[in-house]
Amino acid sequence: MPVIDNAIYRDGVRVATPATLEETFETLDAHGGFAWIGLYRPSDAELDAVAAEFGLHPLAVEDARKGHQRAKLERYGDSLFVVLRPGRYVDRTETVEFGEVHLFVGANFAVGIRRAETPDVAKVRRRLEEDPELLAQGPEAVLYAVLDEVVDEYAPVVAGLENDIDEIEDQLFSGDPAVTRRIYDLASEVMEFQRATRPLLDMFGALERGFDKYGVDVELQRYLRDVKDHVIRIVERGEGFRQLLQNALSVHATLVTQRQNEEMQRLSEASVASSEQAKKISSWAAIIFAPTLIAGIYGMNFAFMPELDEPWGYPFALSLMAVFALVLYLVFKQRKWL
Amino acid sequence: MPVIDNAIYRDGVRVATPATLEETFETLDAHGGFAWIGLYRPSDAELDAVAAEFGLHPLAVEDARKGHQRAKLERYGDSLFVVLRPGRYVDRTETVEFGEVHLFVGANFAVGIRRAETPDVAKVRRRLEEDPELLAQGPEAVLYAVLDEVVDEYAPVVAGLENDIDEIEDQLFSGDPAVTRRIYDLASEVMEFQRATRPLLDMFGALERGFDKYGVDVELQRYLRDVKDHVIRIVERGEGFRQLLQNALSVHATLVTQRQNEEMQRLSEASVASSEQAKKISSWAAIIFAPTLIAGIYGMNFAFMPELDEPWGYPFALSLMAVFALVLYLVFKQRKWL
Amino acid sequence: MPVIDNAIYRDGVRVATPATLEETFETLDAHGGFAWIGLYRPSDAELDAVAAEFGLHPLAVEDARKGHQRAKLERYGDSLFVVLRPGRYVDRTETVEFGEVHLFVGANFAVGIRRAETPDVAKVRRRLEEDPELLAQGPEAVLYAVLDEVVDEYAPVVAGLENDIDEIEDQLFSGDPAVTRRIYDLASEVMEFQRATRPLLDMFGALERGFDKYGVDVELQRYLRDVKDHVIRIVERGEGFRQLLQNALSVHATLVTQRQNEEMQRLSEASVASSEQAKKISSWAAIIFAPTLIAGIYGMNFAFMPELDEPWGYPFALSLMAVFALVLYLVFKQRKWL
Amino acid sequence: MPVIDNAIYRDGVRVATPATLEETFETLDAHGGFAWIGLYRPSDAELDAVAAEFGLHPLAVEDARKGHQRAKLERYGDSLFVVLRPGRYVDRTETVEFGEVHLFVGANFAVGIRRAETPDVAKVRRRLEEDPELLAQGPEAVLYAVLDEVVDEYAPVVAGLENDIDEIEDQLFSGDPAVTRRIYDLASEVMEFQRATRPLLDMFGALERGFDKYGVDVELQRYLRDVKDHVIRIVERGEGFRQLLQNALSVHATLVTQRQNEEMQRLSEASVASSEQAKKISSWAAIIFAPTLIAGIYGMNFAFMPELDEPWGYPFALSLMAVFALVLYLVFKQRKWL
Amino acid sequence: MPVIDNAIYRDGVRVATPATLEETFETLDAHGGFAWIGLYRPSDAELDAVAAEFGLHPLAVEDARKGHQRAKLERYGDSLFVVLRPGRYVDRTETVEFGEVHLFVGANFAVGIRRAETPDVAKVRRRLEEDPELLAQGPEAVLYAVLDEVVDEYAPVVAGLENDIDEIEDQLFSGDPAVTRRIYDLASEVMEFQRATRPLLDMFGALERGFDKYGVDVELQRYLRDVKDHVIRIVERGEGFRQLLQNALSVHATLVTQRQNEEMQRLSEASVASSEQAKKISSWAAIIFAPTLIAGIYGMNFAFMPELDEPWGYPFALSLMAVFALVLYLVFKQRKWL
Repeated sequence: MPVIDNAIYRDGVRVATPATLEETFETLDAHGGFAWIGLYRPSDAELDAVAAEFGLHPLAVEDARKGHQRAKLERYGDSLFVVLRPGRYVDRTETVEFGEVHLFVGANFAVGIRRAETPDVAKVRRRLEEDPELLAQGPEAVLYAVLDEVVDEYAPVVAGLENDIDEIEDQLFSGDPAVTRRIYDLASEVMEFQRATRPLLDMFGALERGFDKYGVDVELQRYLRDVKDHVIRIVERGEGFRQLLQNALSVHATLVTQRQNEEMQRLSEASVASSEQAKKISSWAAIIFAPTLIAGIYGMNFAFMPELDEPWGYPFALSLMAVFALVLYLVFKQRKWL
Repeated sequence: MPVIDNAIYRDGVRVATPATLEETFETLDAHGGFAWIGLYRPSDAELDAVAAEFGLHPLAVEDARKGHQRAKLERYGDSLFVVLRPGRYVDRTETVEFGEVHLFVGANFAVGIRRAETPDVAKVRRRLEEDPELLAQGPEAVLYAVLDEVVDEYAPVVAGLENDIDEIEDQLFSGDPAVTRRIYDLASEVMEFQRATRPLLDMFGALERGFDKYGVDVELQRYLRDVKDHVIRIVERGEGFRQLLQNALSVHATLVTQRQNEEMQRLSEASVASSEQAKKISSWAAIIFAPTLIAGIYGMNFAFMPELDEPWGYPFALSLMAVFALVLYLVFKQRKWL
Repeated sequence: MPVIDNAIYRDGVRVATPATLEETFETLDAHGGFAWIGLYRPSDAELDAVAAEFGLHPLAVEDARKGHQRAKLERYGDSLFVVLRPGRYVDRTETVEFGEVHLFVGANFAVGIRRAETPDVAKVRRRLEEDPELLAQGPEAVLYAVLDEVVDEYAPVVAGLENDIDEIEDQLFSGDPAVTRRIYDLASEVMEFQRATRPLLDMFGALERGFDKYGVDVELQRYLRDVKDHVIRIVERGEGFRQLLQNALSVHATLVTQRQNEEMQRLSEASVASSEQAKKISSWAAIIFAPTLIAGIYGMNFAFMPELDEPWGYPFALSLMAVFALVLYLVFKQRKWL
Repeated sequence: MPVIDNAIYRDGVRVATPATLEETFETLDAHGGFAWIGLYRPSDAELDAVAAEFGLHPLAVEDARKGHQRAKLERYGDSLFVVLRPGRYVDRTETVEFGEVHLFVGANFAVGIRRAETPDVAKVRRRLEEDPELLAQGPEAVLYAVLDEVVDEYAPVVAGLENDIDEIEDQLFSGDPAVTRRIYDLASEVMEFQRATRPLLDMFGALERGFDKYGVDVELQRYLRDVKDHVIRIVERGEGFRQLLQNALSVHATLVTQRQNEEMQRLSEASVASSEQAKKISSWAAIIFAPTLIAGIYGMNFAFMPELDEPWGYPFALSLMAVFALVLYLVFKQRKWL
Repeated sequence: MPVIDNAIYRDGVRVATPATLEETFETLDAHGGFAWIGLYRPSDAELDAVAAEFGLHPLAVEDARKGHQRAKLERYGDSLFVVLRPGRYVDRTETVEFGEVHLFVGANFAVGIRRAETPDVAKVRRRLEEDPELLAQGPEAVLYAVLDEVVDEYAPVVAGLENDIDEIEDQLFSGDPAVTRRIYDLASEVMEFQRATRPLLDMFGALERGFDKYGVDVELQRYLRDVKDHVIRIVERGEGFRQLLQNALSVHATLVTQRQNEEMQRLSEASVASSEQAKKISSWAAIIFAPTLIAGIYGMNFAFMPELDEPWGYPFALSLMAVFALVLYLVFKQRKWL
């Protein structure tokens, strides 16, 4: 059922809740007041019926049908067409989902069209019905209340993004390489968020410029300015997030290089140590190899090798080996190879 | 044949389809209405004929002849000269090709000049002929419809660029080094796209400022504002693409360094492993070399080597070798070289 | 006790110091003048009492209750609502703490609400009471004095941040890797500081635009312009700090890479040195190994080895060894291996 | 000779070509029309003579004498002083050379002063003399024609810079390290070019603001707007070049790091390969060394070595060597060292 | 002595040079004209005397006393208060030193206060006294002349900074690592310079807006516009310097990485060469070791080794050694190890 709620208000009070759109149109024509109709995924026929009754402009109806993908406010004669992009932070995927809400506001009607679950329009209606003084301001009060709700729903998005950035800052200095992708993805989300929220500033500017011309109630002006003030803060936060992530990315690049330096230092030290060791090993190899040469010499089979026949030959050879090895040992020691 | 179509309209209806430009001029002078002439690569003579008949300004004709390379709107007295740069996304090369369309709009004529295949002007004419109410607005309706078509044709360009960026994001984190060039090339394309679309904002601003002065129909104003709204979105997307690619480039640089870190770690580990191995090999070399020294000693030919004549000499020597090797083995083991 | 001070002034002089808010309201109604009430963490009831008496706007009261987190100035009919974000530099943590002060200024009242220790409102009151001429300007003089105090208190914040940046510059070129985090953290503080101070520029702009309309005294205008001038300098310093830290970050990245180069050069030199050494060691190994081969040959047990029986055999073999070793030595020397 | 050309025009036609400046002044006073004087590096005296005759402002004359180094347009009463910075692309050095042209335009005179070869003022005069209708507009037509010429001469500069950027793009991806300096130098040239061309936008803005006040002919307005349009395109191109070179620099840095990765991979692979080889060599060393140990043992001279006297001793020893070597071979094979 | 010069002018001519300030005030009251007083580090009392006489605003006097640290122009009723920040380039340290000059300009006085050596106010006075026509314009002529002098003194600062940047460019490509710090320090100087000069643009804007209201002489307007023109050029140069240094920093980072690549290539080549060498050495080791094995075998003492008793045994063994070595040599040669 696409018609969520459908009521007629007079002086801030609900005076009728027609069952069908036709009945709404008739009651409105007969008794005055203004109709507030909430549609959820209406069919083309239903949309055309509403458009015909309230004289909605075909370009606006076209946007409402196809989606416009950018917040805007367009004035067609006496009526306003407003596109809003409510946001919802999805913690599991660290993304922001954007829906789209359309609002037609005329002298005696406010028609809201929604295709996603957010924003909570029922809550908006409850709030206004509890504040008859405000609702008595007519369809413009509905416009205010929907704007207020959509802007209020950005607060958890800002909180979610801020929380992610806090986590990223911790991750950054802990050296987790996965932070690169996270920064990139979050920066894209923030850009998306800025694209959704920044046009609201122009929107409120356009609304304010129309305050005098269209005789908007002073009190309602204040309420709208209050919402605008929230928008300014949200847009500033978005911009702040963008800068923080930019900084985080720069810092991350530096940290990655810094870690590389540490790795390189480790490599350099390993290389020096390995080279030291090679010297040590080679030195010892030389020390135990030297006696082998002497043994080889006295193992030669020459007939005339005087030392061989001397009784001091053997101890002499052993001593020679020991001396040779010792000399090498001392030489290496002195050269700091050992 | 440079004249694509050539018709005279009165009250939104095609009343004549003259065979030649001369006939058009005569019919127009005789019966009123307005002429809509579509030229495709006209010769200088044809352009001069049209210019002379409709009093087109020489500077505008000069631009139409040589190409102006930047979208603009210039007002010469009662007539407008519009330059547009339609775009076409070429998927194969991931480039955007820009053409150029010129439009002269006066009180009783609309002359379109095209040198490339895009935009689809025939479609524009069909659309307008099916909507006599709009066409009855005269040459300004033609201006609107051409603007709308050109701006609509930017949508697939935006989609193509977005698709490339999505692919680049995937490529980015998969470590393909070819992504550097792709980011660079796409960033150049996006810059080109921004150069083509951003002047449209000023153009629509200039058009809007002329709305009151030149008595543009309110409904047509809305249609033009609707096109402007599309332009805003397209320009915002272009800017978003630029920022995304900027981010992608920064992130890519960091990822490249990150990969370098991994490579360096691999190198460092290989170096340490190789150094460990060298110690092992050297140790084993020492272990098997040590017995050789003993064998060498007892291979010496001294006459007086008491051990040689003892029956326990040989087993003693073998045991000495074994003990020597074992001691070395234990020493190396203790030093964790083995 | 939430009521810090509560006084009624006439012609710049304190004429009454009522004990309760009720008394204040009565005295004010009876004798004129204006009330200056300072509240510290008021309860909701107290806030409501003040709001009811002075007709404060619910939206402003709501902001005062919940905190608004952004400096702003809002005009509700004849009264002004001002939100300020006083800052305090905490040297120990190198952070800037921001409080929030609310000020309601009407024709006959100035109500200040504070929730933190800063700013020093008592000082503001003392200063004004010592300058009756200024205080005679009424509640707007209070507005000026509070603005002046809050802006003056930014000076030590600027000094603290500047001092940190000076330290960072020294740290930067000393090669301390901890500087990365410090730059990042300080940049976040500076961003926060800019978020607190930049809205003041718009605030003073709005105040100035109201000077003529609301008949602000010329002398007071000058005082306010003087404060604005301080704000401009503070905002410029904040922007300068941001740029300096940006530069520091870029320079730091380059220095890190530069240090990497030095490390790599060290590694490269170690590698070359180690390779030189390997050549040297191998050469010496060859030189002492060569004689071993000759010794081995003459240790063979062939029956017919003519040299063995010759008396010159042994010296010949030794000479051969020496020559062999010498030749190798010279070859290696020539090849620069030794 | 500093006076290049010196003519008096009436109704768009050259009516006199005085030989000296004195004659020009006299003719002009006597018969009206306007003088167009072209000076090339005039002496101070000549400049003073012209200044005195036409009442040129001392500040403007001072600028004309010393050079002003920035395009500007200054109005002194009825006369205009224009400084232009014509550019010339020098292909050999890939630099842009900037000259300076001064133009004094009054009710009845146009004085151009040039110190370099560009722009081609003779061409400007020829063009105007061939278009009497335009020249009949008086000195302002000269202003237009000089502006047009100077702006037209920027076209080859833009083409030259674009060509350099194209070459840089190719060089970039070919890995030539010299591209760093080329990007830097070209970026400096582009900055210089922007400094020369951007002030023209303000200049044309100032001219346009004076259109109504000074009754500039509508047609001439269009011509000037046409030149302005060229300036916009040139300034946009300059900005585009700046961005392209910025991108090129970023991409270049990434490519350099990417090449480093490849180098490091090569190093890493070489290191691993070298380590593999060391294992292989060591294994073979062990395999051929093992038999040596056995040979050494059986070369010992113990009196009682039973195997020595057995007929199977020798083949047994050889087999032992073979088995020992084979076992080692298999062990190493199994450990994948061979 | 704080009073540098103290004179009264009428119609552009110095008519009195009072010895004391009191005398000045009296003369001025009695005979008209205007006083131009130059103070150097005045005491508070002297400042107060001047302030009282000329009705200087306390806020301005406060700024003059404490220093304001930012160029500004403030209008207090009929009088102007101007703060200027003259700059001086110190070549030795490559820094820019900024002083502060205050100027009070009223209907009949111009009071200049200086605390540093620059600017050369005596020169300003000399220049004006030599140009009575200009000085006849009264105190505003003094304002112009001081502004002109301060702005002129920025020229050597610009030249000094430009010279440093030129040197940095050379240093950059010569690979001197000290350039990092130099770029950073100079960038800080340039930022300081921009902070000093940029407010001048707003200042001149404020002056121009007052031209009509305060009836500034047309000729003086031109002179002031001429100074403004200099300021624009100086501010543009400052901005250009900032960009050049930004570029230099980016390029420097790339060059550092490029040098790293070269270092890494050197390392990689050294590593490959060292590995080649290891193969060569090992091969030669094997070649000379192989004969040792054969010698060892024939050195064994087995009773039954048939070859030992053959006359061809010895040559056979030597040939075997040679063949063995040769085979190894050829194998290694074929495997490209030698």
